[in-house]
Amino acid sequence: MTAGFGARLRTALDTHGPLCVGIDPHVSLVEEWGFEASGAGIREFGLRVVEASAGRVGVVKPQVAFFERFGAAGFAALEDVLRAARDAGLVVIADAKRGDIGSTMDGYAAAWLSAGSPLEADAVTLNPYLGADSLRDTLASAVATGKGAFVLAATSNPEAHVLQSASVHGAGAETVAARVAREAAVAGGASVDSLGPIGVVVGATADREAVGLTDAALEQLPILAPGFGAQGAEPRDLRRLFGRVARNVVASESRSILSAGPDRLAARIDERAGLYAEVNLG
Amino acid sequence: MTAGFGARLRTALDTHGPLCVGIDPHVSLVEEWGFEASGAGIREFGLRVVEASAGRVGVVKPQVAFFERFGAAGFAALEDVLRAARDAGLVVIADAKRGDIGSTMDGYAAAWLSAGSPLEADAVTLNPYLGADSLRDTLASAVATGKGAFVLAATSNPEAHVLQSASVHGAGAETVAARVAREAAVAGGASVDSLGPIGVVVGATADREAVGLTDAALEQLPILAPGFGAQGAEPRDLRRLFGRVARNVVASESRSILSAGPDRLAARIDERAGLYAEVNLG
Repeated sequence: MTAGFGARLRTALDTHGPLCVGIDPHVSLVEEWGFEASGAGIREFGLRVVEASAGRVGVVKPQVAFFERFGAAGFAALEDVLRAARDAGLVVIADAKRGDIGSTMDGYAAAWLSAGSPLEADAVTLNPYLGADSLRDTLASAVATGKGAFVLAATSNPEAHVLQSASVHGAGAETVAARVAREAAVAGGASVDSLGPIGVVVGATADREAVGLTDAALEQLPILAPGFGAQGAEPRDLRRLFGRVARNVVASESRSILSAGPDRLAARIDERAGLYAEVNLG
Repeated sequence: MTAGFGARLRTALDTHGPLCVGIDPHVSLVEEWGFEASGAGIREFGLRVVEASAGRVGVVKPQVAFFERFGAAGFAALEDVLRAARDAGLVVIADAKRGDIGSTMDGYAAAWLSAGSPLEADAVTLNPYLGADSLRDTLASAVATGKGAFVLAATSNPEAHVLQSASVHGAGAETVAARVAREAAVAGGASVDSLGPIGVVVGATADREAVGLTDAALEQLPILAPGFGAQGAEPRDLRRLFGRVARNVVASESRSILSAGPDRLAARIDERAGLYAEVNLG
């Protein structure tokens, strides 16, 4: 039997530290690397990132938007990148931010989380605007087969506060973001002694206080935290930003690593991973 | 110069009525039709729906999740379906519910709304969880080139209320859904005498009162309303459900039409469109 996603993620973080390499084939970056802005070019870009990441970090996160931009050719590239990453033993989080209801949501779950799907990943990011509760049923079968998900809770962009800090009716002072975290814990059936399979996305520099995401609200949840590196947060900030749940954070960096270019990529990953190794996660 | 999306949609609705045919190649439905559950099968399914829709309705809405389920092969099918629909003069709304920030959002906009993209549609559905305001910049260039978007505001599923009716801080009694509608109007620069290019998604049977979406909040916005037909709302309900903004509603039906099977499809579309023709939209 395959270990659950939470257990596999725990092992990856304990072995390699919190750094997650974002696979973001942004057109301008792909061209900086000397590759063509095409399906073939982003395939090559993605495979180089996978190759440099293998053995150096535990987790990678392909950003689906940059592949989708090239239509079917982009998805063909993404299929190859996902397969290479999983074959290399990396935990793969597809950053797709999908969200829908009923059978439509089942379609997305089948795409990203079913064994043998051409887009199979270990976990996917999800958007809860249609109701975090509505994700429960869809995720149940994915969880049963060892897959995971990260539901958007709080993001770092300033416009996000309006919605994420809004107060849920009839629930005291509960915010939208806190409700999402609570539903993620329910959907994942998190236990007290290990990470659950369903986590949340919390931007590294998100104002957690404003959106009501206390350490207690995040306990036992895997936390995917974009925003480290070029976007402003540094490894040494991890403990200050995430307190006693810092051990459960997947710290995602993209530009800070990818800007090294294809030849210096591995060295840059070692350098960034080294900075996290110096941090006491508690 | 191409007419703006709002103007083109107005013409389509005035010419053909509010019915929009959903292109939902759900696996079970594709097999009921006698087609293979594969990229080739959903391509055939989608093209048959386009062929039957052309000249009978003004708008079609492919559901991206059902194509994504087949990975790159599914997207190759979707490219062909989108092209065939646009070539047939249909207004095409890609129901993708994408949402992200900054350059990532630009990637999605480039995929669905840029001229010459393999996935080019006339409009796309968007998810505002990361802040409806954050969509403004991204949409500006799409709007300038005649494209449109529908931002999720209120959906019909019971779990959706929790988030969509939450109260935005410091904004009186404004709900999340009402804020989304207000931002859509700002992003689209809606004028008083025509439809703007940016609209909202409001489920036909969504509890508009609970989420604070008055007729006034929806004025001049195109409204994409899934949930007609098999999902519970009938054409005769349109005026009661949408009041004085009923004229701006794109009434989307999927299963009620697709269940006819490939041979009786055109007749079923005529039948359903006929029911809307009897409704006084005010």
